[in-house]
Order: sequence, then structure tokens, then C-alpha cells
Amino acid sequence: MQNFRFICPTDFIFGKDTENSVGEEIKKYGKRILLHYGGGHIKKNGLYDRIIRSLKANEIEYVELGGVKANPDVEMVREGIRLCREEKLDFILAAGGGSVIDSAKAIAMGVSYPGDVWDFFVGKAQIEEALPVGVILTIPATGSEASNTTVVTNSEGGHSKRAASGDNIKPVFAIMNPELTYSLPAYQTAAGGVDIFSHVAERYFTLEPDCGFTDRLCEATMKTVIGCLPEVLSHPQEYAGRAEIMWTGTIAHNGILGVGRSEDWGSHMLGHEITAFYGLTHGATLSIIIPNWMEYVYKTDVTRFVKYAVNVWNVENNMDHPEKTALEGIRRTRDFFRSVGMPVTLEEAGIDGDRIEEMAENCTKYGPVGGFVTLRKEDCMAIYEKSK
Amino acid sequence: MQNFRFICPTDFIFGKDTENSVGEEIKKYGKRILLHYGGGHIKKNGLYDRIIRSLKANEIEYVELGGVKANPDVEMVREGIRLCREEKLDFILAAGGGSVIDSAKAIAMGVSYPGDVWDFFVGKAQIEEALPVGVILTIPATGSEASNTTVVTNSEGGHSKRAASGDNIKPVFAIMNPELTYSLPAYQTAAGGVDIFSHVAERYFTLEPDCGFTDRLCEATMKTVIGCLPEVLSHPQEYAGRAEIMWTGTIAHNGILGVGRSEDWGSHMLGHEITAFYGLTHGATLSIIIPNWMEYVYKTDVTRFVKYAVNVWNVENNMDHPEKTALEGIRRTRDFFRSVGMPVTLEEAGIDGDRIEEMAENCTKYGPVGGFVTLRKEDCMAIYEKSK
Repeated sequence: MQNFRFICPTDFIFGKDTENSVGEEIKKYGKRILLHYGGGHIKKNGLYDRIIRSLKANEIEYVELGGVKANPDVEMVREGIRLCREEKLDFILAAGGGSVIDSAKAIAMGVSYPGDVWDFFVGKAQIEEALPVGVILTIPATGSEASNTTVVTNSEGGHSKRAASGDNIKPVFAIMNPELTYSLPAYQTAAGGVDIFSHVAERYFTLEPDCGFTDRLCEATMKTVIGCLPEVLSHPQEYAGRAEIMWTGTIAHNGILGVGRSEDWGSHMLGHEITAFYGLTHGATLSIIIPNWMEYVYKTDVTRFVKYAVNVWNVENNMDHPEKTALEGIRRTRDFFRSVGMPVTLEEAGIDGDRIEEMAENCTKYGPVGGFVTLRKEDCMAIYEKSK
Repeated sequence: MQNFRFICPTDFIFGKDTENSVGEEIKKYGKRILLHYGGGHIKKNGLYDRIIRSLKANEIEYVELGGVKANPDVEMVREGIRLCREEKLDFILAAGGGSVIDSAKAIAMGVSYPGDVWDFFVGKAQIEEALPVGVILTIPATGSEASNTTVVTNSEGGHSKRAASGDNIKPVFAIMNPELTYSLPAYQTAAGGVDIFSHVAERYFTLEPDCGFTDRLCEATMKTVIGCLPEVLSHPQEYAGRAEIMWTGTIAHNGILGVGRSEDWGSHMLGHEITAFYGLTHGATLSIIIPNWMEYVYKTDVTRFVKYAVNVWNVENNMDHPEKTALEGIRRTRDFFRSVGMPVTLEEAGIDGDRIEEMAENCTKYGPVGGFVTLRKEDCMAIYEKSK
């Protein structure tokens, strides 16, 4: 186990009706807030009204910035930063899914930075301070409600979807009411589930040999997603399954499953390019890439892929032919993604693959990617080709 | 899953040589500290010198209070409170195991309270504010480095070992270097392992039906202890095993394994009385009580005990006779405790059992105990009798 530092200070307020306490929670941190959200969904389902009621009851002033789209754009982040400065706001409430939260985090870290916020995403600046961000989560997927990361898209001068990280952008609280996810469409639910699963897989495939405890916690989390996601798709209004998926999303990405080990993240990098070039949903890029990435890299550590197959997928271990065990685990991964309605090839997602070289070029623009296996441009091309 | 609130703000600094940064960490919170520790062990192994060096390098003034014994006494807590007030200290560093940390937490919450600190332990006062506490952990066992609980013993007017809880006594940081545990004697190592295991078991046995994810995380933690503890006893100076055990101790008791569910804690209450009456090590009271508690209560939820047997102990499920499966899981629990050198009967611990009625009386003095099964005085007596 490598030396590590881990902190997750987020205050989780989980369960039915918890959004009604949002004003009370915010009061501990600020008085004038940016209320940040996406499309009209929170207005249709009543969440917006409940938030406003709670803000007013607690005498919290608010400025609104709605309209965040999937794969939040740096332009809106800049607009948020401008608003926070002009209106002297001291807190950001993100009411939505990962895109809204990521946009809020990026705004939070940009307010006191004199340069352009995109600097953080290309390694030109480190996050020194940030406004506190609170969350009301409506889509379990990205784990952004407790992660130290934000992913933002920049369309200027080509396509770019990049991440920035820092412990001081971890949300101060996350209000998580599983009932708010009852109305999520099946596709979005499944895409979220794949994203959660992949956050664990990116950590599970590590070069670190002595981290059996965290491996077990990873396996427990992946098995829960495998068990619960089909349940939730069949019974979208059942609390138990929605609650399990919501909490796995947090544990998968708050950092606890990555302590003391190297992580990979190659599949995310490959997936981000597909989104940047074709606009495909994040979870759908992962359901395509992950099994292909696995098949491309498994020979570098067959033993770990055997462990994955046996402990996560209950594959019977073929001791004489461990590679067969490993491949069966990968096959079941792909079958699972397909079974919940997600694409497993680029073609199924309506993508022809003409821009594979461009994507591979862009993916490795700042150097090779991946911590478990290092992927250079030609590796990225090969994985995209396999994914056609 | 029940509604829950979970926060674990502790900053974990885990790995080799991490204790050398203690002064830098403390600087974020205070300038004049109480350095609290146990016997001479930290002086013998050099930890004390390294702490002092780091404090001086960071210009932190310190007042020492050493000599904390196992099952920390309320008298020393009162002494620490007096010191903190007189010397105007603003931070407490606990360098040691659970007893030292618990003593430090109790001091921390008593400093600004005008009444006697024992009030917190008998429900006469709630923790309103506390000095920040930092930890250098030397014994993985109680999980006190990240828990919201402190357990203190009061010998005035009879024997009493009781707990007080509050989120504001969670340590602000926990420095955890597994190498500091290399010199722990086998008995203390094993007793710590049993304590860790029991912290999970007390949460695993719940009345809440829909908490499968946390169940899996609990199972992962218990399986890790089962796998690693014998390894550590055979190879006490191997880093990997010591590191795994140290981290399980934190996860087992920082609250994450208890979210959204009722917990039990009956075995801990029964065990505390054995310690209060006979001075027996905490872990040894649990290795005796837990299997007997399990046999006494398993019929109230055979299904959960079958799950425990199959998922934690790999017992083959006897579908025709689930009770046999359940009992086999309990048998393996007792065998495991015995195999690591811990007593499994009162007699093996040199206790005759003459004071069973007194212990049962004391255990239920403030009402019945246990969240999974409610234990009244006669139940406690029966479990103590079974444990002879």
C-alpha cells in the first residue's frame, strides 16, 4: 500500500424530504448565493419551489443561473464567475446532476483567480481557494457531489473536455433524496450506473499489489451496481434500489476506493474525446470503451483480471487457463452494459469512427494516458478501432 | 434504508514516516497544545522524540500529560481539563491507542463545559463544543481516530465504563504509520483485531432490510480482518498486513458502515461490564461475548445469520436447514477468535463468574441494551452464564 492522504469533509444528508433543509444548511456558510441548475426539470417536479421556500425561510438572498447543459461549457462557467463577482456572492448551490455540480465547482474556483478559469484545466494554474459549494443531487452518476474533480468542455479552437482537481472544491454538503431520481429516464439511469461502475473499475485496475482491503470494497461496490441497476430499471419508483444506487455513486468517487494505490483513468480519457467530438453521453462512451480497453490490456496482468472475473462476476476460475477466466469476466461486463440498454460499440451509438485518429491525437495531446497501462496515440487508435 | 446524516471530516495521513509532519498539521489548528500519551512506549521507540522535534520545528508550545492507562479513567480526564484551562491550550495531540485518544476527546469536550465531564457520559449534558484533537495512532483497534465516540471509566461509587458521542469530537487529523505497530505484542494485536471485527458485527446485525450495499462493505471489512490478522501475527514486521489491519480499524468505526440502519452494540455493553468489574482487555471481552451473544439471539433473524455465515465465512448454505448454516457461521467466528489466541470463555480469561448478576444489573442500569435484539437484565445474565 502506498502512502496516502484522504479527506472527505462533505456532510451527507441522505433520505426522504432532506431537500427541505437546504436553507438551514446554507446558513452555516453564506448569505448570498448563486443558485445553479440545468434545464427546466427542477421547476417541473417542484424541487425549485421547495428550494426557494427554504432559502426565503432562512433569509438567504439568491441570484439564479440556470440552463447548464450536459458536458458543461466553459462559457457558462465564465458567466457564473462574473455573476459571483458582480453580485458579491459567497456560496454556490448546485441543484442537479454532475454537469451542474461540475459547473458550480469550476465557478467556485474561478471567482478569486485573476486569470481565465480554463487555466486550471490545462495545468497552468492550481486551485488555491474556492467558494463553498453545496449540492442537491438529482442524478446519481458522476460522484461529483463528493469528489475533488470538475470536468468542463471548451469548444474554442477544437474540442476539449478536461478535468481539474483540488480538495478545496469538494462540496461542503450533499443533500441526497433518492425520491428525486424516480423520474429519471431509463437511459439516463443506466448511463449513470455505468459511470458509477466505471469509477470503481478505473481504481480497481492498479499496479499496487498490497491493497486487498480496498479491492474488496471495490468489488462490493461493483457487485451492488450489478445487482441494483436492473432492479431500478424494472422498478424505477422503488425507494430501496434508488437509494442503493445513489449511495454507490458517492462511495465510488469520493476517493475512498482509491487510497494507497495507483489508478488508471485511461477509459475516461478515451471516453471524454468521444463526447467532445460527437456529444455522446458520458456513460455511453464508457459502456463502449471499458470492455474494449479491458480486452486490449488484460494480458499485462491476467491475475488481476482473473480476480475481477471471479470476485465481481462470480466466474468459475479456470485454473488451467486463467486467460479464459479473465476473458469471461470481460464478456460479462459487456453483456451487463448491453443488458441495461447501453451501447457497446461506436456503431450502436451512431458513430462511424471516421475521426478516430483525431480523437486519439487529442486524447494524448498532453502526453500518454492511463495509470495501469500507459496508452500512447497508437494504443488509443487501436482501442477506438476495436470499439467500432 | 433509513434517512441518515454522515460526516467524517478527519484528514487521514497514512503511511511511512508520516508522524514527522505532525507539527505542520497542528499549526493549522493551534499553537499551544496538550501532548497526551500513555506509558513509556512512545519514548522507547523514538516516536516521542520525533514528535518533539516536529513541534519545535513548527514553534508549537506543549504541555505534557502522559500515563494514560488502558480503559482511561475520568480522574485523568479531569486533570487534563484543568491543565488545558490553566495553560490556555488550544489543541490536544493524542499519541497512542484508543485509550489515549478517548481520554483526549473527553478532555476536549470538557474544557468549555462548566459542570463535571462525567455528565456527558450519563446523559446529563450534550457536547456543544470541543477543542480540536489530532491523533498519531499506535494501536489499530478502537477506531477512535475517526469515530465520534469516547469511552471512559469511572471507579467512584462502583464500576462504570461508559460512552459519550458527538460529531464535534471527531479528530481533525489522524496520522497513521503502520510501522509504529510492528512492536505491538501478539495479544494486543489480536485483541485489536477482534475489536475491529466487532465494530463491524455490531452494525451488520440490524433490523433494517434494505441496506445491501453497506452489508457488502461490512462483509468486505470482516473478511479482510479474518484474512489479515493471522498473517500479521505470523509476520508482525511486514508492512502490507499491518497497513491493511490499520485501515480496516478506521473504516470499521468511522460511521460509514452504519449509515441508514439501526445498529446493535449489545455485545459492547456486556463487554464493558466485564472490563469494569475485572479489568479484562476490551478485545478479550468481545471474543468471549460475541459468539455467545450470536447463539443467544440468532433465532430472531436466522436469514441474516445465514447471510453472515455464507458471505463472511464461506459456509456452504444448507438450504434445508438454514439454522445449521447460521450456527456454522457462529462456530467459525468463535474458532477464529480462539485461533488468534483470544479467550472465548470467561474461565479462559480467569474469571469465575460470581458477579454475573451484578454485571447484568449494571449493564441495564439505564435501561435495556442492544438495537438488534433488546437485552434486559435476565438476557444479560443468560449470555454471561453461557459465556462461563
